[in-house]
Amino acid sequence: MAEPPQTDEGWFALHDLRTVDWDAWRDAPDHEQDRAVREGIDYLQRHEAVADADEGVSAVFSVLGHKADLMVVHFRPTLDALSTAERAFDRTALGGFTEQTTSYVSVTEVSGYGSTDYFDDPESVDAGYRRYVEGKLHPDIPEDTYVSFYPMSKRRDPEYNWYDLDFEERSDMMSAHGETGKGYAGKIKQVIASSVGFDDYEWGVTLFADDPTDIKDIVYEMRFDEVSAKYGEFGQFYVGRRFPPEDLDAFLAG
Amino acid sequence: MAEPPQTDEGWFALHDLRTVDWDAWRDAPDHEQDRAVREGIDYLQRHEAVADADEGVSAVFSVLGHKADLMVVHFRPTLDALSTAERAFDRTALGGFTEQTTSYVSVTEVSGYGSTDYFDDPESVDAGYRRYVEGKLHPDIPEDTYVSFYPMSKRRDPEYNWYDLDFEERSDMMSAHGETGKGYAGKIKQVIASSVGFDDYEWGVTLFADDPTDIKDIVYEMRFDEVSAKYGEFGQFYVGRRFPPEDLDAFLAG
Amino acid sequence: MAEPPQTDEGWFALHDLRTVDWDAWRDAPDHEQDRAVREGIDYLQRHEAVADADEGVSAVFSVLGHKADLMVVHFRPTLDALSTAERAFDRTALGGFTEQTTSYVSVTEVSGYGSTDYFDDPESVDAGYRRYVEGKLHPDIPEDTYVSFYPMSKRRDPEYNWYDLDFEERSDMMSAHGETGKGYAGKIKQVIASSVGFDDYEWGVTLFADDPTDIKDIVYEMRFDEVSAKYGEFGQFYVGRRFPPEDLDAFLAG
Amino acid sequence: MAEPPQTDEGWFALHDLRTVDWDAWRDAPDHEQDRAVREGIDYLQRHEAVADADEGVSAVFSVLGHKADLMVVHFRPTLDALSTAERAFDRTALGGFTEQTTSYVSVTEVSGYGSTDYFDDPESVDAGYRRYVEGKLHPDIPEDTYVSFYPMSKRRDPEYNWYDLDFEERSDMMSAHGETGKGYAGKIKQVIASSVGFDDYEWGVTLFADDPTDIKDIVYEMRFDEVSAKYGEFGQFYVGRRFPPEDLDAFLAG
Amino acid sequence: MAEPPQTDEGWFALHDLRTVDWDAWRDAPDHEQDRAVREGIDYLQRHEAVADADEGVSAVFSVLGHKADLMVVHFRPTLDALSTAERAFDRTALGGFTEQTTSYVSVTEVSGYGSTDYFDDPESVDAGYRRYVEGKLHPDIPEDTYVSFYPMSKRRDPEYNWYDLDFEERSDMMSAHGETGKGYAGKIKQVIASSVGFDDYEWGVTLFADDPTDIKDIVYEMRFDEVSAKYGEFGQFYVGRRFPPEDLDAFLAG
Repeated sequence: MAEPPQTDEGWFALHDLRTVDWDAWRDAPDHEQDRAVREGIDYLQRHEAVADADEGVSAVFSVLGHKADLMVVHFRPTLDALSTAERAFDRTALGGFTEQTTSYVSVTEVSGYGSTDYFDDPESVDAGYRRYVEGKLHPDIPEDTYVSFYPMSKRRDPEYNWYDLDFEERSDMMSAHGETGKGYAGKIKQVIASSVGFDDYEWGVTLFADDPTDIKDIVYEMRFDEVSAKYGEFGQFYVGRRFPPEDLDAFLAG
Repeated sequence: MAEPPQTDEGWFALHDLRTVDWDAWRDAPDHEQDRAVREGIDYLQRHEAVADADEGVSAVFSVLGHKADLMVVHFRPTLDALSTAERAFDRTALGGFTEQTTSYVSVTEVSGYGSTDYFDDPESVDAGYRRYVEGKLHPDIPEDTYVSFYPMSKRRDPEYNWYDLDFEERSDMMSAHGETGKGYAGKIKQVIASSVGFDDYEWGVTLFADDPTDIKDIVYEMRFDEVSAKYGEFGQFYVGRRFPPEDLDAFLAG
Repeated sequence: MAEPPQTDEGWFALHDLRTVDWDAWRDAPDHEQDRAVREGIDYLQRHEAVADADEGVSAVFSVLGHKADLMVVHFRPTLDALSTAERAFDRTALGGFTEQTTSYVSVTEVSGYGSTDYFDDPESVDAGYRRYVEGKLHPDIPEDTYVSFYPMSKRRDPEYNWYDLDFEERSDMMSAHGETGKGYAGKIKQVIASSVGFDDYEWGVTLFADDPTDIKDIVYEMRFDEVSAKYGEFGQFYVGRRFPPEDLDAFLAG
Repeated sequence: MAEPPQTDEGWFALHDLRTVDWDAWRDAPDHEQDRAVREGIDYLQRHEAVADADEGVSAVFSVLGHKADLMVVHFRPTLDALSTAERAFDRTALGGFTEQTTSYVSVTEVSGYGSTDYFDDPESVDAGYRRYVEGKLHPDIPEDTYVSFYPMSKRRDPEYNWYDLDFEERSDMMSAHGETGKGYAGKIKQVIASSVGFDDYEWGVTLFADDPTDIKDIVYEMRFDEVSAKYGEFGQFYVGRRFPPEDLDAFLAG
Repeated sequence: MAEPPQTDEGWFALHDLRTVDWDAWRDAPDHEQDRAVREGIDYLQRHEAVADADEGVSAVFSVLGHKADLMVVHFRPTLDALSTAERAFDRTALGGFTEQTTSYVSVTEVSGYGSTDYFDDPESVDAGYRRYVEGKLHPDIPEDTYVSFYPMSKRRDPEYNWYDLDFEERSDMMSAHGETGKGYAGKIKQVIASSVGFDDYEWGVTLFADDPTDIKDIVYEMRFDEVSAKYGEFGQFYVGRRFPPEDLDAFLAG
């Protein structure tokens, strides 16, 4: 049996993706639209307001294409808080104009493929590294940012079986992958969350960028990394842009 | 032809997964909501009340994400009792606010990959082992627990063909897999049920835990076991939490 | 080119699987429910009444899980008679409370993988064998029986290519498969029908049993047969139980 | 790079598959049913009337099972004429009782895997061969015939890569495949149309037969041909029977 | 790690595919149809009017078959402009008669598999090459043209792993592929756009032609190119024809 890496976990995550029923919206009288906008803004503002390490963070994004119109992302300390947030959206008048077409449940994770010092004793590592880990486990979400979300797994095929590799081989590939990522420092912010046992792929990846071309560039360059080229299996991709809750009205106005 | 293991079977199982039609719920007048809650609680309480080895057990869980909102799990001595339970739910007023988006039919199973003594003569084994088997065939469901449900099959690919392996090879891998499981004793309770001939995968796995991170940890660690790394094929994952029937009102209130 | 086996065909088969619209049913006034039950029983009784070798047989089954609630199985001498039976169901008031979620079109088939005497001259074989073949081509359906239906194909992959094997290799594997089946004589009745050119898999398999655990056992044991372990590709499985048409009312009452 | 065969093209083809909304049909008043039948017959008769080599041919088929109830097949000299025919159906009152569940767009094609004389100079080949090619490019549709339609592609897998084979290897396999087909002369009529660049598979195959068992037999026998056994990838199969437009009323009456 | 090619990007692209709800259209009173046509023409004309390199281009196509009736293609300098265009369509009365069944998000791209001079210094290359690149990054859409759209990825399988090949091997195959394309100069216009990180495949390909048979021919011939035969993975294909906005009325009239 190959050795699993040590892991540490932070917030649970729900990516809640919804299409807008534009027919119902177009046909709705003004006062119903007004109420949906009001309840929607209120829901989003209240959930975005819980922005500290004890309570989590939330944000809303417009999404391009037929797969979704809106993506609400919640990070919370418990699955229960995510379940409550999900159902609270369905209870708003805005929820009545949307359909939840897909979603993703995961938990932020750091893996001990590099140094295991942090996992042996978190206090033994320097403050910079602890801040780095903390940022991975309890991420914040940049304002006015483009987003790309996709789930992925590692392959378990006869010639490309990640789970059959030695720890060192995996560690080397993860390290090289990290080097590619460092080339995008300041341009791309990345959140990795494990969905093993929770959802259909093994991880959910959320990328944030000021320039959407950087998203294309990093995913493309990383695809040539051995860990992706041989072992990555990717699900559906969703691309969009964050907007402040108070712009919900403008979003729905088309 | 490779030799199949001996098996023993216990209760038949139905995992009944449903989404709530939140639009209809939001629009329903109070008396209709009241009736749905009343009939729903009554249905769930009556089905949970049959909790002994002759009659089976039932429980209801909230589920995260778009794939389902509710999962009702029934274990019963006959397929007929499962069929009756399924249709009885559809006849409640609560059923009218739900859609059955997926389900899974199986029968609890123990396999004789280790000692075959139990299968040769169940009375020949010690009482502790008989209790262990009994707990696998007629499981109870912990209160206030998190749950993860997923179906799985064993691969039959040229290089990874479970059904073409010697009995001993399979037995050794199952034994190593069991050792990984023992590391989660007291943290994870696991129910395995065969769906061969009944549903689309070969087994349904239901995991219970006080801490959902333990679910992620055991599934991740086990994925490195040879039996999963090379031979496991996994379906969709559903994660949620048990709630007592009398909290149905609170669940629906968001 | 590998040599195909000789075949003989009997009745055409339609497996017609339907979900009940429980919301519409719950909301329907008594006289509409009564009419649906009356027309449903009449339809089923008339189609089950054609039970002889010239006309075919029909039966109705309750089905567990979300994939279907009802399965009506028709065997008939012509595709036209199946088409008429299918559309006649849709014209009943019962049809109005159902949705045809899936179906399967096939023709009962015996293959000459063993002795070819029957195919060279059906009269040359003994009466017992002719009765065996007749039972395969014009099967009857046991009363009060559990059923499992699933479609399957033979693989055509580089290392596991059924259609590239010598006739003798295929014949030997089919013969060993038959031996496994003989171990379930008296417990399992099996109908094989070819759907090559008619539907999405190559065969439809229908198993009947008094004890549903025997269904699980035979499919599991057969999966270790070389012909299944290496060459079988399976579709979705449907499990249920036959009921007499006059119990339709009880079925719909939940 | 492997050498592509020369090809010649004839009519563009649209296979337009539709389910009937039997609930709406059952509930429709007589005058609406009458109008739908009248407009449907008129549509079908007008489109079947264009039966000559300049204009194309059309036919309507009943289809068994849940995937479709009706298949309208149009062959036309231009894609535009197909587009017009498709939308004209949707404008009839009959269209209002149907849903277009699937479709297939292709163009009839002959490939120069055998002699290339025809492609070098169509006038150089004898009249019999020119008539054969003409029948492939501008087919007629037999009356009162059973039909099987399915799309297919050639595999591009490492060990079974059609597009990586020498021209001669492909030519030999196509020739052997043709020999199998000749065994069904007089029993099966076959139309091959390329959908490369137009639809999701590479070809659409339409088989016509007086006896549906011949359809099963030819597809089964051909599956043992090397070209199918190793290189064929098949989509969904649709089976049905042609009926004259004036029988539409009887078809809808069940 | 294999070396990625240099790339340059131009306009972002949205392929917005919609079916028409013909039942609703048929039933709509004249003034509603008139309003939908008027708003639809206005939307399309306004979006097609932005035809210069600073603002992008748009066009509308009729599409054959069940997968879509209309495809609106937008090229724009920002993702935001695409998002606005998508939602603006949903706000028209025409949008109310359509359903967005699929879509594709990408960005036009040129790759440095040939000479890298352009990427090192765009000014260093001759004006003809710069115009060629400019035409790839900021394409115009021919009037009165047939169209084929499909997404594709490069395979990452053990024997056919594009992302594991040396740069030279990839460059040679891309160059040979380009040679095949040159054989269709004047007949086929091709737009390549990367969707890595944005949508489910890695590229979207849009072909334009006066003669739809040329589309079939180029895609078929290219399938024999090593880069496609071994490394191409194709999604769904959509075929149709451009029409001027003012013909929307005629399109909807069937």
